[in-house]
Amino acid sequence: MKFDHQSRLKKLRKRLARRRLDGFLVTNSKNIYYLCGFFGDNSWLLVTAERALLITDFRFREQAEETLAPGCEVRVRTGESLSGKAAVLCRELSLKKIGFEGRHLNCESFLRLKKVLRKRELRPVGEPVEELRMIKDPEEIEFLRRAARITSQVLGMVLRGVTPELTEFDLAGRITIGMLRDGGAPAFPPIVASGTHSSQPHAVALRHSIGEGSALLIDLGTESENYNSDMTRTFVLKTFPRRFKTIYRAVLSAQKKALQAIRPGVQASLIDGAARGYLEERGYGPYFGHSLGHGVGLEVHERPLISPRSADILKEGMVFTVEPGVYIPGWGGIRIEDTVLVTGDGYEILTGYPKDLESMVIKRNLKRQTSIDKTG
Amino acid sequence: MKFDHQSRLKKLRKRLARRRLDGFLVTNSKNIYYLCGFFGDNSWLLVTAERALLITDFRFREQAEETLAPGCEVRVRTGESLSGKAAVLCRELSLKKIGFEGRHLNCESFLRLKKVLRKRELRPVGEPVEELRMIKDPEEIEFLRRAARITSQVLGMVLRGVTPELTEFDLAGRITIGMLRDGGAPAFPPIVASGTHSSQPHAVALRHSIGEGSALLIDLGTESENYNSDMTRTFVLKTFPRRFKTIYRAVLSAQKKALQAIRPGVQASLIDGAARGYLEERGYGPYFGHSLGHGVGLEVHERPLISPRSADILKEGMVFTVEPGVYIPGWGGIRIEDTVLVTGDGYEILTGYPKDLESMVIKRNLKRQTSIDKTG
Repeated sequence: MKFDHQSRLKKLRKRLARRRLDGFLVTNSKNIYYLCGFFGDNSWLLVTAERALLITDFRFREQAEETLAPGCEVRVRTGESLSGKAAVLCRELSLKKIGFEGRHLNCESFLRLKKVLRKRELRPVGEPVEELRMIKDPEEIEFLRRAARITSQVLGMVLRGVTPELTEFDLAGRITIGMLRDGGAPAFPPIVASGTHSSQPHAVALRHSIGEGSALLIDLGTESENYNSDMTRTFVLKTFPRRFKTIYRAVLSAQKKALQAIRPGVQASLIDGAARGYLEERGYGPYFGHSLGHGVGLEVHERPLISPRSADILKEGMVFTVEPGVYIPGWGGIRIEDTVLVTGDGYEILTGYPKDLESMVIKRNLKRQTSIDKTG
Repeated sequence: MKFDHQSRLKKLRKRLARRRLDGFLVTNSKNIYYLCGFFGDNSWLLVTAERALLITDFRFREQAEETLAPGCEVRVRTGESLSGKAAVLCRELSLKKIGFEGRHLNCESFLRLKKVLRKRELRPVGEPVEELRMIKDPEEIEFLRRAARITSQVLGMVLRGVTPELTEFDLAGRITIGMLRDGGAPAFPPIVASGTHSSQPHAVALRHSIGEGSALLIDLGTESENYNSDMTRTFVLKTFPRRFKTIYRAVLSAQKKALQAIRPGVQASLIDGAARGYLEERGYGPYFGHSLGHGVGLEVHERPLISPRSADILKEGMVFTVEPGVYIPGWGGIRIEDTVLVTGDGYEILTGYPKDLESMVIKRNLKRQTSIDKTG
């Protein structure tokens, strides 16, 4: 086994015991994978003090038998719904207090389960598995490093072919192809936004040319072996647009302020505050409207949350993004984002692509390439 | 606008009026896109008899303003949660009976909303938007045709490069690259499973070579302009494995039986029964453990459900898959899947790749290609 599922289940069981729960129903597929190694849809995991039962169907039976961690059992449902089968198992195992994932179980399944289980207590529980997932094992950190490495490699590779004629859409396609060639896949559709379009933090790549002398924001992440990375750089083609240098330096300094504050024991909200305060002092406060960052792991967005109101506290082994940005409608946007690991006494940046102002200038290419077909 | 959002909202409002609801909270992102044209995360749509309010945040403000259908309004939340902002709007608009999507709203948000809205009635409603989405507009059918066309093209293209040495993983990568080059993207990670691995209906492509004389199951779908397609073909490399011809003919005949039963007014369960009954007669019943098909549109899996217990009734404009399969652990699996459109008097197959037994034999390639890098 790649991962120590037994130790993860043990930690979860400790949390369940503290809440005096006899059983816990895991319905989120990433959480199920984390706990027992099974990756499939439409399956739930019922964890008790002694057992871990995967409820799945015909389509995933063989897969479950092959991938499930030792000690976990498969229960194939045939006629019943997931909630129906879960209720049957709860009765069989005489579970009285059953917790479930309040943020994942949908309302309909909840109401149905509640009806079927009658006197048994059904209780929404926060995010116990997400909380375990915040602290990465050494094995997970290796996967995260690899995903981050591919991301930097691919960015370097695609930039060599950028011309003003290239469209955002084609550049996003090249990024995706690059990731596949390096053995990964896009963690999300790459964001490629040039000129005024870059003021949309979550822009969708368009079929318009990048053009010269405008900002080019590229936000990309690779998924490799189910683990993700996330990185943003903002370039310019040949010449700097008006105000670019000033704003870029402010965003870079804001990121630096936040990074320097990272170490175990610090509140996540203070990390956000370090960058936000800096940007506010320079008058960019209204142009930085999102959180500073988010955890990265099996999901691209997970705990901890690095925001003004986050209650999370940094611990060694956490991995999250630090991504201040300034977005001015009608002008454009600049974001600098890295995925970082909290170490014993500070931090380590996993996404190592350069970010000094000088490295952001793409010189015009001699050979012109305008469509995906010519990159092969 | 590409789509007639006004007419979609009008149809939804009729359904809400029938249920005596003052408002309806749409929380599923595909449903939101369908109703108002906005594509982003973490946003909800509140529909009343007169208005349609999109609740979103800073990151999507500009995007919302650009893409939202005429008549719809944007409300940007700042401090509050989505459910907090939704509650504020429900009060502002004096809504008394508010429906929501029981299968999409998570239990935690439901309990929070219920607490905040107090005396106002909050009611889980089935799937009114999914029901509208079952019948495709002419514009949607064009997108679905295009997605299906790319799928067939890409399959034909990648097969030219298949050799026994190629791994499942690399072939899946080539399929993805092919889709991107044709202006689409994978609707799901392509399933490429050879030999005994093909007995897993939802196999994950492995890094092992396809090999000669074994079944090669390829299940692929393209997403293009947010619409999907889904198709499976099962090939053999050079020579037929034992039992392949017999089982292939049975699966193909089962598909034919189902297709011939398709026309408006027929129960979806009867379509499933036509294929299932045929396979059962031939003793393959225990080896066909999944539903015959599922709707395809903005999602790869949506309504109608084509299964023994489906209550859906076929109507003109529905698009779904017909995918019988026989999976024998230790031997392998054969599935034949097409995406079809229900027409006024029958059906039309959108995924036009050949499926006669003779077309399934891949002759060994003269030029050997073993890695993604050489396909460019």
